[in-house]
Amino acid sequence: MIISMKLGATKQEVEHVCQLLREFGYKAHTIQGEERVVIGAVGKLENKQQVMDSIESAPGVESVVAVSQPYKFVSKESQPGKTVLRLDGCSIGGAEFAVIAGPCSVESEQQILSTAEAVKKAGATILRGGAFKPRTSPYDFQGLEEEGLKLLRKAKEKTGLAICTEVMSAEDVEMVAEYADVLQVGARNMQNSTLLKRLGKTNKTIMLKRGMSATIKELLLSAEYILTSGNPNVFLCERGIRTFETYTRNTLDLSAIPALAELTHLPIIADPSHGTGKRSLIHPMSRASVAAGADGIMVEVHVNPEKAFSDGAQALLPSEFDQLMQDLKPYLEIWKATRKAAQASSLVAQA
Amino acid sequence: MIISMKLGATKQEVEHVCQLLREFGYKAHTIQGEERVVIGAVGKLENKQQVMDSIESAPGVESVVAVSQPYKFVSKESQPGKTVLRLDGCSIGGAEFAVIAGPCSVESEQQILSTAEAVKKAGATILRGGAFKPRTSPYDFQGLEEEGLKLLRKAKEKTGLAICTEVMSAEDVEMVAEYADVLQVGARNMQNSTLLKRLGKTNKTIMLKRGMSATIKELLLSAEYILTSGNPNVFLCERGIRTFETYTRNTLDLSAIPALAELTHLPIIADPSHGTGKRSLIHPMSRASVAAGADGIMVEVHVNPEKAFSDGAQALLPSEFDQLMQDLKPYLEIWKATRKAAQASSLVAQA
Amino acid sequence: MIISMKLGATKQEVEHVCQLLREFGYKAHTIQGEERVVIGAVGKLENKQQVMDSIESAPGVESVVAVSQPYKFVSKESQPGKTVLRLDGCSIGGAEFAVIAGPCSVESEQQILSTAEAVKKAGATILRGGAFKPRTSPYDFQGLEEEGLKLLRKAKEKTGLAICTEVMSAEDVEMVAEYADVLQVGARNMQNSTLLKRLGKTNKTIMLKRGMSATIKELLLSAEYILTSGNPNVFLCERGIRTFETYTRNTLDLSAIPALAELTHLPIIADPSHGTGKRSLIHPMSRASVAAGADGIMVEVHVNPEKAFSDGAQALLPSEFDQLMQDLKPYLEIWKATRKAAQASSLVAQA
Amino acid sequence: MIISMKLGATKQEVEHVCQLLREFGYKAHTIQGEERVVIGAVGKLENKQQVMDSIESAPGVESVVAVSQPYKFVSKESQPGKTVLRLDGCSIGGAEFAVIAGPCSVESEQQILSTAEAVKKAGATILRGGAFKPRTSPYDFQGLEEEGLKLLRKAKEKTGLAICTEVMSAEDVEMVAEYADVLQVGARNMQNSTLLKRLGKTNKTIMLKRGMSATIKELLLSAEYILTSGNPNVFLCERGIRTFETYTRNTLDLSAIPALAELTHLPIIADPSHGTGKRSLIHPMSRASVAAGADGIMVEVHVNPEKAFSDGAQALLPSEFDQLMQDLKPYLEIWKATRKAAQASSLVAQA
Repeated sequence: MIISMKLGATKQEVEHVCQLLREFGYKAHTIQGEERVVIGAVGKLENKQQVMDSIESAPGVESVVAVSQPYKFVSKESQPGKTVLRLDGCSIGGAEFAVIAGPCSVESEQQILSTAEAVKKAGATILRGGAFKPRTSPYDFQGLEEEGLKLLRKAKEKTGLAICTEVMSAEDVEMVAEYADVLQVGARNMQNSTLLKRLGKTNKTIMLKRGMSATIKELLLSAEYILTSGNPNVFLCERGIRTFETYTRNTLDLSAIPALAELTHLPIIADPSHGTGKRSLIHPMSRASVAAGADGIMVEVHVNPEKAFSDGAQALLPSEFDQLMQDLKPYLEIWKATRKAAQASSLVAQA
Repeated sequence: MIISMKLGATKQEVEHVCQLLREFGYKAHTIQGEERVVIGAVGKLENKQQVMDSIESAPGVESVVAVSQPYKFVSKESQPGKTVLRLDGCSIGGAEFAVIAGPCSVESEQQILSTAEAVKKAGATILRGGAFKPRTSPYDFQGLEEEGLKLLRKAKEKTGLAICTEVMSAEDVEMVAEYADVLQVGARNMQNSTLLKRLGKTNKTIMLKRGMSATIKELLLSAEYILTSGNPNVFLCERGIRTFETYTRNTLDLSAIPALAELTHLPIIADPSHGTGKRSLIHPMSRASVAAGADGIMVEVHVNPEKAFSDGAQALLPSEFDQLMQDLKPYLEIWKATRKAAQASSLVAQA
Repeated sequence: MIISMKLGATKQEVEHVCQLLREFGYKAHTIQGEERVVIGAVGKLENKQQVMDSIESAPGVESVVAVSQPYKFVSKESQPGKTVLRLDGCSIGGAEFAVIAGPCSVESEQQILSTAEAVKKAGATILRGGAFKPRTSPYDFQGLEEEGLKLLRKAKEKTGLAICTEVMSAEDVEMVAEYADVLQVGARNMQNSTLLKRLGKTNKTIMLKRGMSATIKELLLSAEYILTSGNPNVFLCERGIRTFETYTRNTLDLSAIPALAELTHLPIIADPSHGTGKRSLIHPMSRASVAAGADGIMVEVHVNPEKAFSDGAQALLPSEFDQLMQDLKPYLEIWKATRKAAQASSLVAQA
Repeated sequence: MIISMKLGATKQEVEHVCQLLREFGYKAHTIQGEERVVIGAVGKLENKQQVMDSIESAPGVESVVAVSQPYKFVSKESQPGKTVLRLDGCSIGGAEFAVIAGPCSVESEQQILSTAEAVKKAGATILRGGAFKPRTSPYDFQGLEEEGLKLLRKAKEKTGLAICTEVMSAEDVEMVAEYADVLQVGARNMQNSTLLKRLGKTNKTIMLKRGMSATIKELLLSAEYILTSGNPNVFLCERGIRTFETYTRNTLDLSAIPALAELTHLPIIADPSHGTGKRSLIHPMSRASVAAGADGIMVEVHVNPEKAFSDGAQALLPSEFDQLMQDLKPYLEIWKATRKAAQASSLVAQA
C-alpha cells in the first residue's frame, strides 16, 4: 500500500499515519520526495480495505493506492497450473474445450428434451437451461423452479449431458445442487456474498458470471469468497459488460479472457449470446473466444426462438448451432494443438 | 412497441410478424414508409420482454423498440401525488426533509450509541448502521449480524430515532424486520428478485438503492417487484453510478432525482457519501441534493473515522455533520417553501 | 511515481529499473516488502508519461502508479486563490454568478436579436450562440459561420452582452477571436491539442468544455495546454459525461464542480442543458449547480424551440428562462453570502 | 421516426405534431393505441436531427425514436460488396489481411528505419509511425512533425512499405498527404468535422479510428462526413472504448468488427495495442481479431520499448512481432479460405 501525503503535510501528520499503520500491524517506510512524502506500507490481506479507508481518513493524506493483489486462493501465485474441473463425461480447464448450450429458460419437457438432443448431437458437452430466472421486470417469465430442475434431470438421463443451471438465492442452493452438475451464479448475483458463501460450503462446480459492471478484480474477489469458504471448484464466465454502446446488448470484453488467465488458475469461458444479444454476432464472437484462449463457450439454443419465453432474439436454432460447431472446428484444432504444446512445455519445466 | 422491418423485407415476413403479434394478444398496425415497413403494436404489460424478443427473432425484423412504460404501480400515471411514508417520529416524501445518518457499520455499543446521540442532536431523523455488510472482499469486515441489530434497537430506545439497516438475503428479512423501521436493499442487491419479492410480503418501509450500473428504468422495475408483491412502502435512493471517472468513488447522478420525480410517485433520496466517496464532497453535494428536489439525504457519520471498520474515508465526524446540518438550513427553508407552494397548488387543482 | 515489482522479480530486474530511472533524471528509493519490492521515484513533470511507459515496459515490473499531479499551472498549488476573469460588463470566478444564455445555433438576425434581448432582460450576463457547429451527422445544420459571427456582434452592440461562441479549428481562431469575448472549446475538441495551443497564443477568455468521456484529470491537462502556451484566461465547463444511462442525454457530473474547485484555481460552470438534454430537468439541475458551488451556468434559450435548427428539445423559451432566473434568486442569495464570507476569511488569512 | 405521445395528450397536440412533420416534408401516420397515440413519420435524411429535436420539443410528446439508419453512403444498403482499398504493394478489404506495424512515434532515422525493416521482414504490409502526436499532457512528446514525415518517406524508399501516419488538423492535411499513403484520424479527432471534411476533399486512403466513447453509429456518421465530401477511400479501426475497467487501458470492443460488417461496406481493422495497452494481451487479441473477421490489425512495434518516447508499455519488440506473425499463420489460413469461399458464393449470387 502506498500512501501519498499532501503537499505541505506536517511531520506530525506523517508520523500519525505511520503510527496508525503500526497499530494495524503494518510496516511503514517513509520516502521523502522533492515535493511530498510518500509512505510505503506492508501488511496482511485481512481488513485491508479498512486500513486503506482509515489511512485515507487521516489528516494530511492525499491518496492511498494498493499495490499487491487483494486475493490469494484464486491467484496464479498460489497455484501456477490451471485448475481442471471434472464433470460427468467432460471437463473444463484441461485439454477439452467446453461447450455449454441450451435454452435460456426451461419451458416444457418437449422443449428441453429436443434441445438437449440437438445440442448433444452437434457436440455440446454441457446442457444449460434456467429454472430460476432473474428478470428485470416482474411481468416477465420467472422460471418453472423445481419443476424445471426435474425436466433438466430428465434431459440428463436421456442424453448424458452434464447440467448447468442458475441458483439465485442461498435458500435454494441445496435444492438446485440435487439436480445440477454446475451451479451458475448469474451476473446480477456476482456480489451476493450470502449466496457465494453458501456455495462455498458445497463441493459442486460453480460457474461465476462477471457482473454487468464488475471489474476483473471484483470478479476474482467474488470467486475468492467461494474458495475461502471451502469450495475450489469454480470457473469464471465473461458475459459482457455494460457500456454506452447500445447496438449490442452488452460489450463482450474478450480481453478479460487472456487478462484473467494471467491472474488466476481458474478456467474461464465466454458467453457470446449474452455478450452481444444478437444472433448474427454469436458466430464471429465464438470464433474469437476460441482464438483468445477461452476454456469454453456458453451459447443459447432454442428449438423455436420466436416462441421462447426469454432471450429469443439471441438464441440459435439447433441447425444454426450445428453450423457454429462446424465453423469452430478448424479453430478448435489450433486451440488443442496450442494446449498440448503448453502442457508439454510445462511438464518439461517441472522436470 | 414499434417494429422496424429490414429494407427489402417481404410481404410474408411482415404478415408473419403481424400474425405473431396477434398470437401474443397484441394489435398490430402496419405503416408503409418510403423505404421500409414499420409496425406499431399495442398490448398488455405481461411478458412484454418475451414478445419483444420473439418479434426481434422473426425473419425480416430490424429492430424492436418499446414506447410505453414497462411498469405500472410505481408509475406517476397510477398515482399522481407523491407517496408519503410515515415512520416513528418522522416521514419521507411529505413536508419533512429526511436525514438518515450514522455509521457504515455497527461496530460496538459505545460506537453506535454515541453516534446516534450525536446525529440526533444535529437534526437527523433516522439512524443508519449496517449489521449485514456486503463487501467486495471476503477479507473485509462482514458485520456483527444479529448482535448489530440488537445494538441498533438499543440506540433507538435511547434516542427515539427510527432505524434503517440493510438486509442482504431473503432468509434474513424476517429477522431484520423485527429490529428495523426501514429495510435497506443495497446497490448490489437491487436486482435480487428473490429478496425483492420477500420484502413485498412485508409491510415494512423499504429503501431501494440504485444498482451501480442500473438505469432509471431498471430501478423502477425493481421497485415494481416490491409493489406487485404487495408492499407499497418503498422509497428510492440515488447513490452514484459506475462510470470511467476515478476521482470520485462513483458518479452521483443528481439528475436522476428530478427525472425519477417525473416518472414515479415514490420518494427519492440522495446518498452523497457513497455517491462521491470523499468527505470533502459531501457538503456541496448534500446542498445540491436539496436544491435538486430530493426528499432526503443519507450521510455516513462516525465518531472515529480513522478506526471505522468500513468506509472511514467518506464518513463525517459528528462535528462535521453538525456543520453540514447548519449549512443546509437556508437551502431547507427554500425547500420547505417550495413544497408548501406545490401542495397548495395541488390542493387547488383537486378542488 | 511508485513502481511495484512482480513477485519473484530478481535483484537484476530491480537494479535495472533503478538504473533506467536514474537515466531519466529520477531519484529512486527501493522498499523491500514481505512479498515484493516497491520502488518510489521522484522526478520532474516533463515526459512523465514516457518515463512511466518505459518503466512499465521493463522486465519484472508489475505496475506503475503516478502519485503527484501531472499538471502545474492550473493547479491550486500554483495559485491558491480563484482566478477571476473580467469581461465587458461582467466577470467569471469572482463575486458574480455568470449566466451564459442563448440559442444553440445562430440562425437569423431576428432570432439572435430577439433571444439576446430576452435573456438580457431576464438577467443573463453573456450571450451564447453557435456559428460553427460540430454535428454528429453531416446531414445536420453546420452553422452560419462568419455570417453568424456578424449577427452575434450585432446582438452585442444592441444589448451590451458579452459574446460566447465556439471555435472548432485552429485555422478559425483568429476570425472567431475578432467577434467573440469568450471562445468556446466544445466537448468534441477538448483534446484537440492543435486548437488548444493556438488558443494559448491569444489573450481571449477560453471556455473549455469537458469531453464526453474525459476524466477530471484529462480536463485539467487540456486546460494546462492553454496555460502553458501563454494564456491564463481559462474557465471550465462541466456539461455531462457519457454513461450507460439513456433517460438523459448525458449524465451531468455535478460532483466534478466541487472536485475541480479542490484541484484548480480556474472558475468552473455547469451546463444543465447539454448535461441533461431535457427541458424539464434544467430548472432543478440549475438550482443544484448553484448549490454545488458553480461559478455560473450555461443555458440554451430559443424563441421558438420547435423551429430551432439544433437542440430544440433542450432549449427553454424566453419566458421559461425568465422563470428559471426567478427560481434561482433565493439560491443565488445564499451563493453570494457564501462567497463574501469566503473572501473575508481569505483576506483575514492573508493579513 | 416514431413519435410516442404522452398519456392524455390532446387531439390538438397530436394534430400539431402531424402539422410540424408535414412542414418539415415528412409524411405522418397516426396509430391510436389503447393507452396512447403513436405517430410514425417518414422523410428524408437531411436535418433529421433538427426534425427529431423539434418534435421532441412540441407539447404532448413523450419520446421520439429514429428507426431508419442516419447514414447513406457508408451503408451496406448503398453498396452490398465490401470496399477494397488498393495501396502501393497491398490492399485492405480484399483477399489480403492488412498488417500495419511500427512505432507509436517516429523518433529518429535509426529507430524508424530499423523498425521498418524488421516489421517488413516479419510480414507487415504497412508501416505506421506518428509524426504529429495527440498527447493528453502538454509535457509529453508532441512528435517530430514534418521532420518525422521525411523519415517515414525514407523508410518507405528503403522497404517499399506503404506509410500510415496521423493528421491532427485540417491545416496539416496537405502536408501530411504529400508523405503518407494512409492518413490516420485518431480517436480524439473522430468528431473533428473540420478535419473530416478536409480529408473528404483529398483522394487519399483514410483510416478513421473510433472515438474513445463513440458508438458504432457515430463512427459511421463520421465516416459519412468523409464520403459525402467526396472521398470514398475510408477504412475503420476499432481501438478500444472507455469503460469502467482499469486493468486494460481501454476495452477492445471486438464485437464492433462483425457488427460494422453488417452495417457498412467499409473495411475494418482492430488495434489490439491501444485496445488493451498491455503487451501480454496483444497476441491473444490479435488472434481473436482475425477470428472475428477483421480486415487487418494495427500493432505497435519498437526496437527499444524501454526508451520509446511514447506507448512503450504496449509496444512489441521486433522479435515478439515476428513471433506474433508466426502465431497468426494458422488463423490467417482459415481467414483466407473463408474469404475465398465468401467471394465465390457472392460471384455465384451475382451470376
